[in-house]
Amino acid sequence: MSHSTASAQTFRAIDVIRKKRDGGELSRFEIDSLIASYTQGSIPDYQVSAWLMAVVVRGMTRGETAALTDAMLHSGEVLDLSAITAKKVDKHSTGGVGDKTSLVLAPLAAVAGVTVPMISGRGLGHTGGTLDKLEAIPGFNVNLPVPEFRRVLEVCGCAMIGQTAEIAPADRKLYALRDVTGTVESPYLICASIMSKKLAEGIDALVLDVKTGSGAFMKSEKDAAFLAELMVETGERMGKRTVALITDMDQPLGNMIGNALEVVEVVDILRGDGPEDLRDLCLELAGWMLHLGGVSKTVSDGKQESAKLISSGQALERFRQMVELQGGDPRVIDDPKGLPQAQHSRQVLCAKSGYISSLQCEQIGTACVILGGGRERKEDSVDPAVGIVLHRKVGDLVTAGEPFATIHYNSESRVAGAQQLLEESCRISDSPPIEKRPLIHQVIGK
Amino acid sequence: MSHSTASAQTFRAIDVIRKKRDGGELSRFEIDSLIASYTQGSIPDYQVSAWLMAVVVRGMTRGETAALTDAMLHSGEVLDLSAITAKKVDKHSTGGVGDKTSLVLAPLAAVAGVTVPMISGRGLGHTGGTLDKLEAIPGFNVNLPVPEFRRVLEVCGCAMIGQTAEIAPADRKLYALRDVTGTVESPYLICASIMSKKLAEGIDALVLDVKTGSGAFMKSEKDAAFLAELMVETGERMGKRTVALITDMDQPLGNMIGNALEVVEVVDILRGDGPEDLRDLCLELAGWMLHLGGVSKTVSDGKQESAKLISSGQALERFRQMVELQGGDPRVIDDPKGLPQAQHSRQVLCAKSGYISSLQCEQIGTACVILGGGRERKEDSVDPAVGIVLHRKVGDLVTAGEPFATIHYNSESRVAGAQQLLEESCRISDSPPIEKRPLIHQVIGK
Repeated sequence: MSHSTASAQTFRAIDVIRKKRDGGELSRFEIDSLIASYTQGSIPDYQVSAWLMAVVVRGMTRGETAALTDAMLHSGEVLDLSAITAKKVDKHSTGGVGDKTSLVLAPLAAVAGVTVPMISGRGLGHTGGTLDKLEAIPGFNVNLPVPEFRRVLEVCGCAMIGQTAEIAPADRKLYALRDVTGTVESPYLICASIMSKKLAEGIDALVLDVKTGSGAFMKSEKDAAFLAELMVETGERMGKRTVALITDMDQPLGNMIGNALEVVEVVDILRGDGPEDLRDLCLELAGWMLHLGGVSKTVSDGKQESAKLISSGQALERFRQMVELQGGDPRVIDDPKGLPQAQHSRQVLCAKSGYISSLQCEQIGTACVILGGGRERKEDSVDPAVGIVLHRKVGDLVTAGEPFATIHYNSESRVAGAQQLLEESCRISDSPPIEKRPLIHQVIGK
Repeated sequence: MSHSTASAQTFRAIDVIRKKRDGGELSRFEIDSLIASYTQGSIPDYQVSAWLMAVVVRGMTRGETAALTDAMLHSGEVLDLSAITAKKVDKHSTGGVGDKTSLVLAPLAAVAGVTVPMISGRGLGHTGGTLDKLEAIPGFNVNLPVPEFRRVLEVCGCAMIGQTAEIAPADRKLYALRDVTGTVESPYLICASIMSKKLAEGIDALVLDVKTGSGAFMKSEKDAAFLAELMVETGERMGKRTVALITDMDQPLGNMIGNALEVVEVVDILRGDGPEDLRDLCLELAGWMLHLGGVSKTVSDGKQESAKLISSGQALERFRQMVELQGGDPRVIDDPKGLPQAQHSRQVLCAKSGYISSLQCEQIGTACVILGGGRERKEDSVDPAVGIVLHRKVGDLVTAGEPFATIHYNSESRVAGAQQLLEESCRISDSPPIEKRPLIHQVIGK
């Protein structure tokens, strides 16, 4: 019929909404038109939110997910880093508590010969954000214009900035709408949001760290694996080597939570010290980055190489160089007292003797938000000095009355709420945990 | 936890959206708050459209549907007709082609002693609307203010007007949003929209005429029955006797389609003439109205009584009285030449000899829209004079070249498109149809 032939050429938002509502598969033309129209402002929020809800409930095929990612990616600028001959590899984490691996990995992979053009986000809710951690370093500028970002990359092989207005504007607009319409929680939309921004960095390969457990967005490993597979397939469909590690976020990563405190722990790791779980995960992720970046034959070789670059002090030196190039004060690397310091501290004690059976990770992240170290709303500002230091982790044997954590705080009115959450977060049982959760649950896409 | 206790008292649109998105059952408080906030304009369209899409895909329980109906009903004024001692009964049809029963039923039931406070709608798409038909009568005012509506009701037992600004404002706002967000097609939302407006009329009982077939919104009998059951249960939960008849709309009802033409056919029926299918359906619906209105012991008694009131001319006289009371020219009842007349007519011929096996009903309704007798968009105006007269119906034996329909038109540029649709709508086969579709498919709620 003439009518249906015509509609194959013409885009009407209502038709696309209805098709997805009824579980149909959208064409590339339909997805491109919807995203382009929304970015230009020619279709209203209320149509897009209805469509987003239909996507959340009906889902998307792999083809639709890749088409959506591509449409969002091309809603703005895609960095052209072809002038840099080294392979460009990035790492992205789905977010957690105490997850500061990016600050270790960028200089570590760079010194090994991989270029790391890292565009990161801020913390929201119980999870921290790379930009907030970097900004705990006095003077560090995460808002470099693209030419300056490129210059830092060329000089030291890594640079870390926030999202620019030019990159994936469709994602910024869509995310703001998803946030207020109950349409955040869709693996397809999460995948397209993450992958469109990462692929706009002009990278050759991507290592994804998909968190699972009580402190992750994806509490169940099944959901985490589903998202990981989706992102790996989307990356591969778009011609980028992509691997996802499902890693544990059932307790905080490392011992320090809070922006300045996490910078201290990053420096510890780069010095060859620091907590074992954080060190192991950094080496594992670095191994993959080096392998995908073509500088190590195997992941295992990449891990060994990374360990050497830490022992030799070269990774720390590269971190210092990046901090300096981005306007930060490099003296804080040698003396953490140059970082923002909280005025007060208070210990949180173990209620009884026994083994720590769990540390409710989201609650610990929320305790940090209560202290002012994270954001409830996007527009909130963050106090870089406050945070939590964990002295004990899951499986540790503790005695009643010994401190399992120290709260670093600036406001007396906030400390009680944080303390209560921390006390509630720590479960102690008489017998040791039967099984220890592994740090790396699965690798997808290898 | 203190957080969830607090949220049981506080309304946040995002929580309600998420709950429905995940298939949860909303509380009365949540539904009331959502509808009240939207009517007041304190939550934006984009949140409500996301919620509407979640409802379309996830559905609603019977309790939620009744709560939504009640919230929409109480978004505005509910007529208090308690001063009228007779039972107040209305009839509502889900819409079709040639469906003019309301104009017959209001005076017919009124003369039998039931009060009929009928608030109707306009035609949209291929379906006609009662208000457009009434306005084909010169001078007829469908926009009576409520006190005047009440006065006409008291004087003649029936009055027919359009929706007022005071009645169910939430429905008006929601419907406008549903129309542009692909969220019209949900039995739960359709039920709440219809029932909230009907129950605001201050009625005691309601007869629903749910159409099924090629000219109905619900093409399948299963969908029609589902909607009918939902509306009956909603009406009963709200304390109103409610019955739904699933009736046939696989071909137009009666022979005339188009506003002035349909008034002619209404007068024919009230004179005891007119086509059999239309007469039978009017008597059946009137029988139910009289039964539910307490003036007939059984439906069958009600039908017999209705037939008598037509034969005696009393129903026609009551129609004449209502027309006069609402400002219309009653002379058109005796001489249809006083109704708007189209300037031209053209016959549509049978392509071959045989039995009419089907008359694609939606196409015939669309042909009338093309002539200008209906609306593609809500803001379109309607030409009352144009329309279609069917000389043959499904099952009739026809000879090639004889006219099966006559088009009454005012614009040469429109007639060709209408003629083509009519020709396509008529299928002729060599053998008679094996089974005749019944006029009344089922009665639900008896």
